[in-house]
Amino acid sequence: MSLDLGFSTLRWEQNHLVLLDQTQLPTKVEYLHCQQVSTVVAAMQRLSVRGAPAIGCAAAYAMLLEMNIDDSKAWLQQLDAHAELLKNARPTAVNLRVGVDHLQNLGHALAGQCKLAERMHHLTQAAKDFHQADAEACLALAEHGQQFLFSGARVLTHCNAGALATGGIGTALGPLHLAHSRGISLQVYADETRPLRQGARLTAWELAQHGIAVKVLPDSAAASLLANGQVDLVFVGADRIAANGDFANKIGTYPLAVLAQRHQVPFYVLTPSTTIDAKCPRAETIPIEMRGVEELFPDHSCPPGVDAWNPAFDCTPAELVTGILTEHGCYCPTADSSWSHYVASLNQSET
Amino acid sequence: MSLDLGFSTLRWEQNHLVLLDQTQLPTKVEYLHCQQVSTVVAAMQRLSVRGAPAIGCAAAYAMLLEMNIDDSKAWLQQLDAHAELLKNARPTAVNLRVGVDHLQNLGHALAGQCKLAERMHHLTQAAKDFHQADAEACLALAEHGQQFLFSGARVLTHCNAGALATGGIGTALGPLHLAHSRGISLQVYADETRPLRQGARLTAWELAQHGIAVKVLPDSAAASLLANGQVDLVFVGADRIAANGDFANKIGTYPLAVLAQRHQVPFYVLTPSTTIDAKCPRAETIPIEMRGVEELFPDHSCPPGVDAWNPAFDCTPAELVTGILTEHGCYCPTADSSWSHYVASLNQSET
Repeated sequence: MSLDLGFSTLRWEQNHLVLLDQTQLPTKVEYLHCQQVSTVVAAMQRLSVRGAPAIGCAAAYAMLLEMNIDDSKAWLQQLDAHAELLKNARPTAVNLRVGVDHLQNLGHALAGQCKLAERMHHLTQAAKDFHQADAEACLALAEHGQQFLFSGARVLTHCNAGALATGGIGTALGPLHLAHSRGISLQVYADETRPLRQGARLTAWELAQHGIAVKVLPDSAAASLLANGQVDLVFVGADRIAANGDFANKIGTYPLAVLAQRHQVPFYVLTPSTTIDAKCPRAETIPIEMRGVEELFPDHSCPPGVDAWNPAFDCTPAELVTGILTEHGCYCPTADSSWSHYVASLNQSET
Repeated sequence: MSLDLGFSTLRWEQNHLVLLDQTQLPTKVEYLHCQQVSTVVAAMQRLSVRGAPAIGCAAAYAMLLEMNIDDSKAWLQQLDAHAELLKNARPTAVNLRVGVDHLQNLGHALAGQCKLAERMHHLTQAAKDFHQADAEACLALAEHGQQFLFSGARVLTHCNAGALATGGIGTALGPLHLAHSRGISLQVYADETRPLRQGARLTAWELAQHGIAVKVLPDSAAASLLANGQVDLVFVGADRIAANGDFANKIGTYPLAVLAQRHQVPFYVLTPSTTIDAKCPRAETIPIEMRGVEELFPDHSCPPGVDAWNPAFDCTPAELVTGILTEHGCYCPTADSSWSHYVASLNQSET
């Protein structure tokens, strides 16, 4: 079971994928009905659906679209083409690849074995299970994260690692939803998160919907908030975690970790284990997506002769992390060998 | 003499003050004609004129407005009332107080001595001299700062400490204008500077007007830029410098200084000596202006139940500063006693 927050980020409905259009929030609550893979790819690139776990779930469901092809060879070709399209939609999030690979591998296993209806039945169930597993991982993660919270706790967060970013109640925001539902009062500070303002538009909206006290601040003010002693802990999500505990997350996470360490504020990364990429040894090997000038200058307002440098993510080294929380527990990547044993165990269960 | 950059931030014209309305940049180049002190105060509060030195010059000129009063006692009362209004317009910038005090003190010295026309003649000359001294300080400062530049230098800056923020060619941007005018090619990175986007709107426009290569980046991306080794030096301005070398500047300066130190990139503060407040011992005693939620959520887009934490400035401790440059030279506040001797000398020349 999951908490009811009054909206659904994504759901499978009558043979198509329904996505909450997050580009419209907080002004409008509108849902996109996707019948085609290209529509889902465009929604991912426009950030109508965003957040690594939500993208993974959306991609798994997208693998079910436009697959009404009897011939099993043509069916497989289509499945492979869709997998390729989806995996190239966003380069950084590992969950996207995991979700797509899972459905693609299952499709290959089924193709010679059974008829279209049966193939689709199994694939649909697999996509739903993938989504359900993410929701359950969020809840387990929230239970672990909630241990660090107390009545009156002041929590700083960045971007949106909430219900809007996952198939469940969120990663970094999950413990906050859970604690609030149990009567623990919190004060959340949400970084605005330029350029797309996911903190101001999404995290603030999501928390306020649930009745959690939230203040938005400019990204560059987080340093002062930490220096002033106004933060008890920092909770952020992750788009990809390397085997050594380095991780990529929304641009602005790295300076937050540096400042949290400087002011001795615990800094936790909350993420489902699917975000851990055991094959990625350290941060330097994580590809960082560069985005366009128009995100910094909407409405073509960029003055002539001016350019932009607009990376979507940054990398934070493991030594700045107090703990990485997954659905399995809390690990400190630099403290002892429990983290490397954990990553190795995930790797084994995958292969 | 000063460089011609094709616009004037502020000028005294036919008995009134003309201000470039910076809230309209870069879309429109419009000038405000101010006949009343309250118009100037409103322009300062709306940030139509901003930047500590420019505010100081504007305030000095504003002291000349609505002073057509024969009776010297009533004239002085009006002068004192205007001084009070102007000094309360913005709480952080020390130049505002210096400019106003200078004119107010002169007014008091003149009041019993001579007639209205003569009083106004002296006051007007004093305001013009105050402005001219700022322009000359910018040029001297630029000469000192230019020594740190070289062909191909990659300079990161924050907010706008340019010609738009001063009565001359700028503080942090002055050396860039000077170097460019001498044929030294530069690559400038301008932090967007949320919430009012002075970097994107003003610095980028100002530098592009002059033909200097400039890229705008989200404030939170500066950490990655520094970590990537893409910055040779950081140049920022200051709104107030304490006697120990701590300083207040636009929100986001402090994390920049922390990250520059972490990545061993020299971090310089460029400011006219008028910004040094010898009576302010250290950063903790500098008042920090808090601003409203509407700057983070324009057009009343703040979701119900959401609040904001929006300080206009932050404080950077002296130990993070490689050097403080004024029109008199370059000082390292933590290296030896030259800085404290310098501050003491300014203090003596004031009293």
